[in-house]
Amino acid sequence: MAQYFDQFEKIAYEGPESTNPLAFRHYDAKKVIMGKTMEEHLRFGACYWHNFCWDGFDIFGAGTFDRPWQKPGNALEMAKMKADVAFDFFSKVGTPYYSFHDVDVAPAGNSIKEYSENMKVMMDVLAQKQDETGMKLLWGTANAFSNARYMSGAGSNPNPEVFAYAASQIFTAMNATKMLGGENYVLWGGREGYETLLNTDLRQEREQLGRLFQMVVEHKHKIGFTGTILIEPKPAEPTKHQYDYDTATVYGFLKQFGLEDEVKVNIEVNHATLAGHSFHHEIATAISLGLFGSIDANRGDAQLGWDTDQFPNSVEEWTPVMYDILRNGGFKTGGLMFDTKLRRQSIDPADFFHGHIGGMDTCALALEKAASLIESQEISSIVADRYAGWSGDLGKAIMTGDYSLESLATQAIGDNIDPKHVSGRQEELENIVNKHIFSK
Amino acid sequence: MAQYFDQFEKIAYEGPESTNPLAFRHYDAKKVIMGKTMEEHLRFGACYWHNFCWDGFDIFGAGTFDRPWQKPGNALEMAKMKADVAFDFFSKVGTPYYSFHDVDVAPAGNSIKEYSENMKVMMDVLAQKQDETGMKLLWGTANAFSNARYMSGAGSNPNPEVFAYAASQIFTAMNATKMLGGENYVLWGGREGYETLLNTDLRQEREQLGRLFQMVVEHKHKIGFTGTILIEPKPAEPTKHQYDYDTATVYGFLKQFGLEDEVKVNIEVNHATLAGHSFHHEIATAISLGLFGSIDANRGDAQLGWDTDQFPNSVEEWTPVMYDILRNGGFKTGGLMFDTKLRRQSIDPADFFHGHIGGMDTCALALEKAASLIESQEISSIVADRYAGWSGDLGKAIMTGDYSLESLATQAIGDNIDPKHVSGRQEELENIVNKHIFSK
Amino acid sequence: MAQYFDQFEKIAYEGPESTNPLAFRHYDAKKVIMGKTMEEHLRFGACYWHNFCWDGFDIFGAGTFDRPWQKPGNALEMAKMKADVAFDFFSKVGTPYYSFHDVDVAPAGNSIKEYSENMKVMMDVLAQKQDETGMKLLWGTANAFSNARYMSGAGSNPNPEVFAYAASQIFTAMNATKMLGGENYVLWGGREGYETLLNTDLRQEREQLGRLFQMVVEHKHKIGFTGTILIEPKPAEPTKHQYDYDTATVYGFLKQFGLEDEVKVNIEVNHATLAGHSFHHEIATAISLGLFGSIDANRGDAQLGWDTDQFPNSVEEWTPVMYDILRNGGFKTGGLMFDTKLRRQSIDPADFFHGHIGGMDTCALALEKAASLIESQEISSIVADRYAGWSGDLGKAIMTGDYSLESLATQAIGDNIDPKHVSGRQEELENIVNKHIFSK
Amino acid sequence: MAQYFDQFEKIAYEGPESTNPLAFRHYDAKKVIMGKTMEEHLRFGACYWHNFCWDGFDIFGAGTFDRPWQKPGNALEMAKMKADVAFDFFSKVGTPYYSFHDVDVAPAGNSIKEYSENMKVMMDVLAQKQDETGMKLLWGTANAFSNARYMSGAGSNPNPEVFAYAASQIFTAMNATKMLGGENYVLWGGREGYETLLNTDLRQEREQLGRLFQMVVEHKHKIGFTGTILIEPKPAEPTKHQYDYDTATVYGFLKQFGLEDEVKVNIEVNHATLAGHSFHHEIATAISLGLFGSIDANRGDAQLGWDTDQFPNSVEEWTPVMYDILRNGGFKTGGLMFDTKLRRQSIDPADFFHGHIGGMDTCALALEKAASLIESQEISSIVADRYAGWSGDLGKAIMTGDYSLESLATQAIGDNIDPKHVSGRQEELENIVNKHIFSK
Ligand SMILES: [Co+2]
Ligand SMILES: [Co+2]
Ligand SMILES: [Co+2]
Ligand SMILES: [Co+2]
Ligand SMILES: [Co+2]
Ligand SMILES: [Co+2]
Ligand SMILES: [Co+2]
Ligand SMILES: [Co+2]
Repeated sequence: MAQYFDQFEKIAYEGPESTNPLAFRHYDAKKVIMGKTMEEHLRFGACYWHNFCWDGFDIFGAGTFDRPWQKPGNALEMAKMKADVAFDFFSKVGTPYYSFHDVDVAPAGNSIKEYSENMKVMMDVLAQKQDETGMKLLWGTANAFSNARYMSGAGSNPNPEVFAYAASQIFTAMNATKMLGGENYVLWGGREGYETLLNTDLRQEREQLGRLFQMVVEHKHKIGFTGTILIEPKPAEPTKHQYDYDTATVYGFLKQFGLEDEVKVNIEVNHATLAGHSFHHEIATAISLGLFGSIDANRGDAQLGWDTDQFPNSVEEWTPVMYDILRNGGFKTGGLMFDTKLRRQSIDPADFFHGHIGGMDTCALALEKAASLIESQEISSIVADRYAGWSGDLGKAIMTGDYSLESLATQAIGDNIDPKHVSGRQEELENIVNKHIFSK
Repeated sequence: MAQYFDQFEKIAYEGPESTNPLAFRHYDAKKVIMGKTMEEHLRFGACYWHNFCWDGFDIFGAGTFDRPWQKPGNALEMAKMKADVAFDFFSKVGTPYYSFHDVDVAPAGNSIKEYSENMKVMMDVLAQKQDETGMKLLWGTANAFSNARYMSGAGSNPNPEVFAYAASQIFTAMNATKMLGGENYVLWGGREGYETLLNTDLRQEREQLGRLFQMVVEHKHKIGFTGTILIEPKPAEPTKHQYDYDTATVYGFLKQFGLEDEVKVNIEVNHATLAGHSFHHEIATAISLGLFGSIDANRGDAQLGWDTDQFPNSVEEWTPVMYDILRNGGFKTGGLMFDTKLRRQSIDPADFFHGHIGGMDTCALALEKAASLIESQEISSIVADRYAGWSGDLGKAIMTGDYSLESLATQAIGDNIDPKHVSGRQEELENIVNKHIFSK
Repeated sequence: MAQYFDQFEKIAYEGPESTNPLAFRHYDAKKVIMGKTMEEHLRFGACYWHNFCWDGFDIFGAGTFDRPWQKPGNALEMAKMKADVAFDFFSKVGTPYYSFHDVDVAPAGNSIKEYSENMKVMMDVLAQKQDETGMKLLWGTANAFSNARYMSGAGSNPNPEVFAYAASQIFTAMNATKMLGGENYVLWGGREGYETLLNTDLRQEREQLGRLFQMVVEHKHKIGFTGTILIEPKPAEPTKHQYDYDTATVYGFLKQFGLEDEVKVNIEVNHATLAGHSFHHEIATAISLGLFGSIDANRGDAQLGWDTDQFPNSVEEWTPVMYDILRNGGFKTGGLMFDTKLRRQSIDPADFFHGHIGGMDTCALALEKAASLIESQEISSIVADRYAGWSGDLGKAIMTGDYSLESLATQAIGDNIDPKHVSGRQEELENIVNKHIFSK
Repeated sequence: MAQYFDQFEKIAYEGPESTNPLAFRHYDAKKVIMGKTMEEHLRFGACYWHNFCWDGFDIFGAGTFDRPWQKPGNALEMAKMKADVAFDFFSKVGTPYYSFHDVDVAPAGNSIKEYSENMKVMMDVLAQKQDETGMKLLWGTANAFSNARYMSGAGSNPNPEVFAYAASQIFTAMNATKMLGGENYVLWGGREGYETLLNTDLRQEREQLGRLFQMVVEHKHKIGFTGTILIEPKPAEPTKHQYDYDTATVYGFLKQFGLEDEVKVNIEVNHATLAGHSFHHEIATAISLGLFGSIDANRGDAQLGWDTDQFPNSVEEWTPVMYDILRNGGFKTGGLMFDTKLRRQSIDPADFFHGHIGGMDTCALALEKAASLIESQEISSIVADRYAGWSGDLGKAIMTGDYSLESLATQAIGDNIDPKHVSGRQEELENIVNKHIFSK
């Protein structure tokens, strides 16, 4: 079915004044910003999962998409047709990267042996596709949540056999990721949580997950995988509560199991907001804890309580995020993966392109605005002023431990200190950001 | 103004059939449950702050309460009148414990020196009141959030002088807590957070707080305070984001600064729900991480996005919580503090009693139901069955590290394992809980 | 597959002390409360939809249930097997009523003609089943949301042909409901809303829905259907925004199209909370507007942003609701329909019973507590006192229009009135409710 | 204290490239867009309430602002000083309009007589200020929520004397608004709701409010006030539930009391989001119901559950809103009122200007982008296509009532219709909007 996208050409950059809906207006892959091309900064990826495996069903209705590669047929043949379509799309939309879950690309089969065989077959297909198209793998992962066997968890399952089954998939998917030159391996714990505390032993399940992640890290080193292991936090859905709730929670988890130098986070925008945080908050927190890895670049809906996985379209939301990423050194092995779904009503082949083009232009524009903010130093100089006291004598002495609570209190009361409060300048800072977004 | 509550007698236990609204129907202080009296299990406390310092104002309206001790007058004299009223109430409602912020009990004065003097005076007053009434101090704390100087944080303030001011209050309040025999010292970071990430250095502020909490722990040991240091998590309000968001976040924070064996959490019910968790979740998480300390026993409103600090009235919500606390050994130094507010429209002296009686009866009843659940073993035996596999050969071998990812996967694929999924029995477990709550 | 529930007997009432998990502890169908039996008050129903049509899939995973009647096979034969199982269950669990969507009971077929033929066949099957078992139909409805044709709405679809298709199903389902003696007909607008305002004409879509509902009411009268037409409000999910958001919204809609005396609401608990209201609020609002019709008796999860459709298990939540329903005359044609789902992990046949038994006992207990509250008059007398002024001269004169704004203001200023505020007694009222729930 | 803003000049338009933080970059008052000036389109107003009456307190802390006109002193003298400062600010920031609550501008006094006298005095002061500065009054209103007497409601109070007191204030404030040439009169029901359903008679309170609003409308006509009466919906805060929850709720209320042609809505951005709607939704709903009146142009915080009343800063959020307003004829008597608060930490005089300038530039830019969208017709033509069927024979016949449910169903089944579903084009539409926002 490679002909599915035959009517479309490779998407080109045509500039802000273009009226062609199938062109980039802002993403100019080879344009240099602060010493790197846009392509190198943004490291875009498109996903197999939502694009090619989902048929448009939701909890109240059947699929709407009618994709040829989702018809009944020989499973391996259909998987190859899907790969043809997928790589045709990836190439045409122009993301340098793609990503997959194991069973997105290879049939799960009727047993773990069949699964294992199918993976072998399909990894060769993917390797060949990568060669032909130049596509690179941003990350691989294992789907240990869709099959009924995982209904009570994978690593955190009360049955150690299910743990073993999940371990087999992860082993296979890690090896496949390495073989395909993947730059990261993602752990998303879709069922690693609980439905009710009444039947759940939190400490036990946490220890199981801790052991599993240690095994993953050990295996990474054993096989010489040089990419990054990423945990993707999410607070809930499908579970009532997921153990990797948010970045701060993941940090504590990693510290407990001695993994904080081995694992980073893959932050998905809508997961941040479902956890009660802004996207910016999760990124800033990950950076401040040394955990920033990669981004699933979708968006949620501020009024809806589930993961809508829409394409990003807010330059305003993304500019401060890009600002923080850029001034902290940018992506290393991570990138901007569109782990995004078309709307269930967006059933046309062209809609695939509209979604990704909009998302890529949004992020590209935010990158430009962020670079402008960095270069102007308007924000950074205000922030530096605000904390200047901590570079002074008192501030340094406090932080280096020269004071005890008693000696500090005694001095402060003795001096009868009376510190003044000064403006936080929030509105002014917000105006500066908007000046850079909208003033040219 | 000790006569404020003169029309009320000490509240007595009269049993479930009592129709006296000013009697306990379920809290029978000396009744023995699983080897301890209700009083020993529940360790109730009433607070100074909401009961005697708040005048009923809210963000849209002025105070409604018209309390005599809040009239204009000499600050120290009014503080003494307030102490008279407070201890009269504490004694009559019959909580063995009370709690305070420094400036609840002593006038803040016009300088840190005045504050320090006022604290000395009022600590003697409180000591005498404790002697006279037999009241004990569950915890003390310092209010480092209400004064304008703390608008940008206390320990996390960009100005180290404000840090020093806060340290002086904490030093004073810790010493006072020790002198009064307090069993815990609480750190609530009301302004320890941010309003906008644009003016905030997350890493810097986190390190400031880490150093402050280390100073607190060092001071505890220096003065020989044998109580527990407690952090009270809250996700937001008054700040946009508070650093001690929830228990999982606090755990990561403590691990980072080497404090996880020194500090525990004081969980407030409404703070749990504002953070997107059930109250039960926060308690179970704290227990599973070894952080469970104490409880601020109020409730929120499921439809409102701020801390309503209402009195607890749900036996259904509290029973599973008490079940977890009880089967994990109960409170040590912690207790059930009513950090609760009367509704702004509940302006009568009698309303103080209605609020506390309802809260105490709710918790007492939940304690009885929890004991019944424990004794029946109906839930614990179902849970034990559910995880039985982890006591078997495979489970043990996984957890002790006998398997690598590869050896486990190889064995699982070789055996072509096919684990079955079994019912999670959620509805049945919920029915068991309700049987214990409602069936006698 | 009638043998699916062969291992189960009809569920019996055994009283509060029973330890049999497959017995009622509180629902005693023939027990008389305030002049009617529990069965007559509660009018329980069980549903076809979640119980027998859903296979346990969710948005992240495949079905877990493995029900025999959901296997591949001849569609009409499978529909008959499903009816056998369903009526066996309905009879054994002992709800007097059941409910269905058209395509729950009859295969949708490959065309509207096939659908129409299948409905004829299956309505005879259902009629016979009703005769055999004595089951009665609480309500019927048409599913105009699951098929891909309805992805952009049914009555509110931009394409009038889809409107016509939906009208055909509603026509068929209304006639079927009448033929089977159904007591209500439900309109749930699962897709009657929007995904984005950018492609939506709100006024146009509202007028389409208004016309559709007028057609429904006209048809009701034409065929002599004596039951009640019910709208089931829901704020969102699957749509971004559903037009029948909540009861207050439905009221405005009905007023606009002159339908306020013809249509009532079917309130689903979780839809209330997703709309930002308590369940109690929606019931009290419906009663105050004269719109109260029926209830879908499920519950949501206070921390999750989607419709979890769990079985009710909170006597505390249901008691004030039952109090309001009972003191306002109880159900007329409506009842308590369990539009509830087993948890995806609750895969055993016994779990069907655990879910419904827990729900029925919860509502039965709440009915008893509500009757106790009514009989004591403790709450009603406090409320009557509170509003007494409106039965006085000033209150009556204001409400009957004797005052203009000017005359009232002139009098008030002239008299220099100074009304006092009195306690709202909230904590006391909450204690009264708990006294009735827990004191015997 | 007119010298408070002496260091500031009138804010000027300097264009997008200006680096002056105290200049407009986008709001060019006299620039003509689609036939009207920006000033005429946007009708900006600044408010008395948050700017000059609030001292920076929040529920956890004291005021931070230290404004000279909020010091102790003779109440009328301080009110005059406040008016000097306020009009100096209004004039310098350059909004053509302002707004006030009665007690923002005149001291409430110790009795309703004193209040009435103070209002007379201060209305003369305001009239003179208007004359001197050319400022116009967008709306007046009465504060019937801050005083303790209103703790249980104003119009909906259980005590008719409180209703009379509120009526006196409304009478006085309406007359004042007329006298000052105000273009609207606003009713915001801050306490018109409930805290607990247990002590509340919903039907009674609704009827009281209905009567009050009828009295207001009658008075409007009696005094010949030609402005618009506006209700400002809000779902909650300070109450648990406010009766004018959202626009749809207000519509039903107005229909019940026959006021739908007399009253419109004043939509506040953050009130929309607290009610679970997007701002755009509330505006589009109001327009579709013929209720659109005016806007309180603030913003909320997507992660916080209370009204933060921040200045608008999202061109992305405002562009579709302006698009809907503009293509439906723009404001009539309404306008864009900054019912906005500086952050509690924004304590400098300059912060007043930063906040308003940012808000005005945001709305001005959104206006330009909206005009561009209208002129291109890209969105409107897609929407027109989408609904084209409703202008065809079938569509028209359905809407004019030519079909009954039966005749439509009979025809559809007879024809065996099979409507196809077509793409909703959401991503494409979103890209079109962003093209207009960002492509020049
Ligand atoms: Co993702
Ligand atoms: Co997602
Ligand atoms: Co607290
Ligand atoms: Co609180
Ligand atoms: Co329902
Ligand atoms: Co539902
Ligand atoms: Co407003
Ligand atoms: Co507001």
